[in-house]
Amino acid sequence: MSVVLAVDAGGTSTRALVVDLSGRSLGYGRAGGGNPLSSGPATAAESLGTAVRGAIGQAGTDPSTIASTTIAMAGASTHLAADDPRNRVIADALIGCGVDAAFGLRSDLLAMFCAGTPALDGYAMVAGTGAAAVRVRAGEVEHVVDGMGWLLGDAGSGFWIGHAVTRAVVADIDGRGPATPMTPALLEMLDLSSGATPPSGPRPEALHRLVEVLYEMRPVRLAQFAPLAFAYPADPVARGVVDAATTALTATINAAIDPDVDGPLVLGGSVLLRQEVASSAVERAWRTGGRTGPVRLVEEGTAGAAVLALRDGGTTVDDEVFDRVASSLAALR
Amino acid sequence: MSVVLAVDAGGTSTRALVVDLSGRSLGYGRAGGGNPLSSGPATAAESLGTAVRGAIGQAGTDPSTIASTTIAMAGASTHLAADDPRNRVIADALIGCGVDAAFGLRSDLLAMFCAGTPALDGYAMVAGTGAAAVRVRAGEVEHVVDGMGWLLGDAGSGFWIGHAVTRAVVADIDGRGPATPMTPALLEMLDLSSGATPPSGPRPEALHRLVEVLYEMRPVRLAQFAPLAFAYPADPVARGVVDAATTALTATINAAIDPDVDGPLVLGGSVLLRQEVASSAVERAWRTGGRTGPVRLVEEGTAGAAVLALRDGGTTVDDEVFDRVASSLAALR
Repeated sequence: MSVVLAVDAGGTSTRALVVDLSGRSLGYGRAGGGNPLSSGPATAAESLGTAVRGAIGQAGTDPSTIASTTIAMAGASTHLAADDPRNRVIADALIGCGVDAAFGLRSDLLAMFCAGTPALDGYAMVAGTGAAAVRVRAGEVEHVVDGMGWLLGDAGSGFWIGHAVTRAVVADIDGRGPATPMTPALLEMLDLSSGATPPSGPRPEALHRLVEVLYEMRPVRLAQFAPLAFAYPADPVARGVVDAATTALTATINAAIDPDVDGPLVLGGSVLLRQEVASSAVERAWRTGGRTGPVRLVEEGTAGAAVLALRDGGTTVDDEVFDRVASSLAALR
Repeated sequence: MSVVLAVDAGGTSTRALVVDLSGRSLGYGRAGGGNPLSSGPATAAESLGTAVRGAIGQAGTDPSTIASTTIAMAGASTHLAADDPRNRVIADALIGCGVDAAFGLRSDLLAMFCAGTPALDGYAMVAGTGAAAVRVRAGEVEHVVDGMGWLLGDAGSGFWIGHAVTRAVVADIDGRGPATPMTPALLEMLDLSSGATPPSGPRPEALHRLVEVLYEMRPVRLAQFAPLAFAYPADPVARGVVDAATTALTATINAAIDPDVDGPLVLGGSVLLRQEVASSAVERAWRTGGRTGPVRLVEEGTAGAAVLALRDGGTTVDDEVFDRVASSLAALR
């Protein structure tokens, strides 16, 4: 029986799955970041190779029998020209694993949607380190909102919130902003709350060390501080950050809505999965106007990449096939 | 007669001045960015060398007769440990020019203050690409507020405003934010408003190109878009950015104030020099509580570096010396 290969190549991890055309997962492999844009071509190629070899090995499949490969990746939703260097990175990595079938790139957001539902119409929204929403019609992404990256967009994302948290804490210590309980909490997280340091010169010593430590990180790493904003609902500063984030996320889902499209809303990413105040605000906005579909939470898009791979391979993914993908994948991990 | 050397080493330009102990400027030199942190050690060393050689050459001074050197530089206000690698970069550059006298580093914000007044007490605030305020007492920086850089601080600065402008424009085109006249203006500035492009796929084509162009810039370059926020006072989006910026700048000057310290307020940087709405908000906040000193606008800190160099060389800088520095420097440029 013929098999297809599905890969979900994310910024921090890459997951590969060999699945037969009935939707049964036969082998699963996992590795580090596999997006050539965020991890660099060399690391991405290595991650893709490791994950794919893992999946093929567990399945015991001859790689030359793989009928097609479908790769879900950020950015593939919109633009990936034929001469995009990512094509070459991926092609070389697959050939290195003995996989010589044609491959197709699909949107990571579409894979998230398909990990939550076999429906062909609906919406998906992810708010993890970044934030974006898509409207799906007839199994394709019809409209994307945000996902414009940490500097220009990703409004309400984990980075956006964590950045606002660090700015509020710096302003607090600097005397420009109100005191907030996020300040001692952040200093504690960074192991900088080492008792009473005497003031040194024209600036508090804690401020120096904090700023030094934070600038040493890659900016997107500020996303790790997002939970602090949700931890102090009684603090006006923290609440202000959360309110601004939910307002931004609400504007993003609203911009994705077409009154003619109903169907499920699939939510993913740490902000929407772990912060009920954020997911309920998004759901409330989405329900306005009478949308009746179910809301599904998904941890990641591997099962959705498999759904897309099956469709690319000619399988109609109904509820039964969808459930088989999900349960057989769960059994492998 | 003995002379001293003053250098104002900024992120985009370096200016050097040879001045005699009466305050008369004898030679002036100029070069590119001279801060080892922002321009890198090699470029900074080259800029320092070019500016210093220019000043010495115009003055016709034997460099071995220079009694002392004073260098104003960002970051020197607060911390510059003896083992800081910047010390070595500067020392080598000066020795390369034949200047073997001892050198001292001073705050660039203190130099801005001293470029506006010979007073020993008062305040200075700069809002250019970055933003910071200092309180000066007895000729030294007693307290610094903000200047924490584009990611964590510089609230209300040119970068901060320009960043908010680009985010608002991206949100407008993305359908997440309200329409604003800053959108066509920004697209025009970037030469991206090339008539009607057909929508391509799930995103507007203009958004792709805008985001691509903006991510190719160094983040601080977004400061160039700050004037757009001030250009549309009737637009609620633009006005919101300006209001938030003036609120932030007001918080920064307020945090610098000590009720016991009066004296002049020296303002610098493009936001405060060119945008009356910003400078008047800062002045209004600063006047609260009864401060009576004059407000002075200064373009840059070279004259202030000279004042600091003269003081380091033992000269008392009174109004007469101060005026001589300013007028003889103006005559040289």
